[in-house]
Amino acid sequence: MKAAKIMDEIKKYIREVPNFPKPGILFYDITTLMQDSIGFRLAVSSMEKYVSSRGATKIAAIESRGFFFGGAIADRLGLSMVPVRKPGKLPSETISEEYDLEYGTDKLEMHKDAINDGDRVVIVDDLIATGGTLEATCNMVQRLGGEVAGISTVIDLSFLPWREKLAAYDVNYLISYDSEEA
Amino acid sequence: MKAAKIMDEIKKYIREVPNFPKPGILFYDITTLMQDSIGFRLAVSSMEKYVSSRGATKIAAIESRGFFFGGAIADRLGLSMVPVRKPGKLPSETISEEYDLEYGTDKLEMHKDAINDGDRVVIVDDLIATGGTLEATCNMVQRLGGEVAGISTVIDLSFLPWREKLAAYDVNYLISYDSEEA
Repeated sequence: MKAAKIMDEIKKYIREVPNFPKPGILFYDITTLMQDSIGFRLAVSSMEKYVSSRGATKIAAIESRGFFFGGAIADRLGLSMVPVRKPGKLPSETISEEYDLEYGTDKLEMHKDAINDGDRVVIVDDLIATGGTLEATCNMVQRLGGEVAGISTVIDLSFLPWREKLAAYDVNYLISYDSEEA
Repeated sequence: MKAAKIMDEIKKYIREVPNFPKPGILFYDITTLMQDSIGFRLAVSSMEKYVSSRGATKIAAIESRGFFFGGAIADRLGLSMVPVRKPGKLPSETISEEYDLEYGTDKLEMHKDAINDGDRVVIVDDLIATGGTLEATCNMVQRLGGEVAGISTVIDLSFLPWREKLAAYDVNYLISYDSEEA
């Protein structure tokens, strides 16, 4: 399928939920994509193709919705699968990076031994919004000696200012939305 | 590979972390399994075989570590993939079930429209411990008209009393540990 056709097809499976998580916000729900075996496999196939084209040796998947896609792509390509998690979830020695929220900051962690020198890592998540969690993950991958081979998500919220933050990286997404007005 | 051989093989990839999440507890870390592409695929293949043998039409995966395995198995078998999540994460109409913690209770949620009458659902998670989250998930699947075709996990903590709680269900796990003493 051509890219534009895949985009139209995948959008059919995304449920738009008004006023979630707060009034005025339109939430793009991927659970309806995952609940359809054709929709889910179409998304995984498209992401797999990108990850493969970047010569990745590892996938780093961001908690929690990135885990569905990361698991499937790693399994298809026989790649190592590294979880990027919220604080306190990873049991062994970690490094962490802060990122900005609307009010305040939050943190993500990776295991110190999850990335080795020379690893080519594609970072997988469901969504690019402000780019904060993706940028924090890129920083951790690089601090551990890996190279960020690319970023792969299902959805791009193109009205949010992630492009400057992630300008140094190759970014791939399957579908774009230009508004979050409910 | 024979089941006993698979069990030995998978155990090699599990990291034992003493005193996590609290002093005296030995934590069985599956991130080292997932970070090894052979280990991860061996686990996914074994779980896939079980899910397939139960004639499942859907996978319900429990937040968050169940998502890695659920995503890969659903992709392999072309099954629908339903997330079971902590409160407030699912955007559309949900049902919920409480389960007991050591002190107090917690809750899991599923989307109301995630399960249809007649669905045969295998529930996927990384670990069976007390069985509380698995039992809560079984209850939700049944309340929504589905049948619990089975439960599939990587690890069984055999010293914890889940067997009575889950006696009504078919339970499959890849490896067992009989102690959590650090």
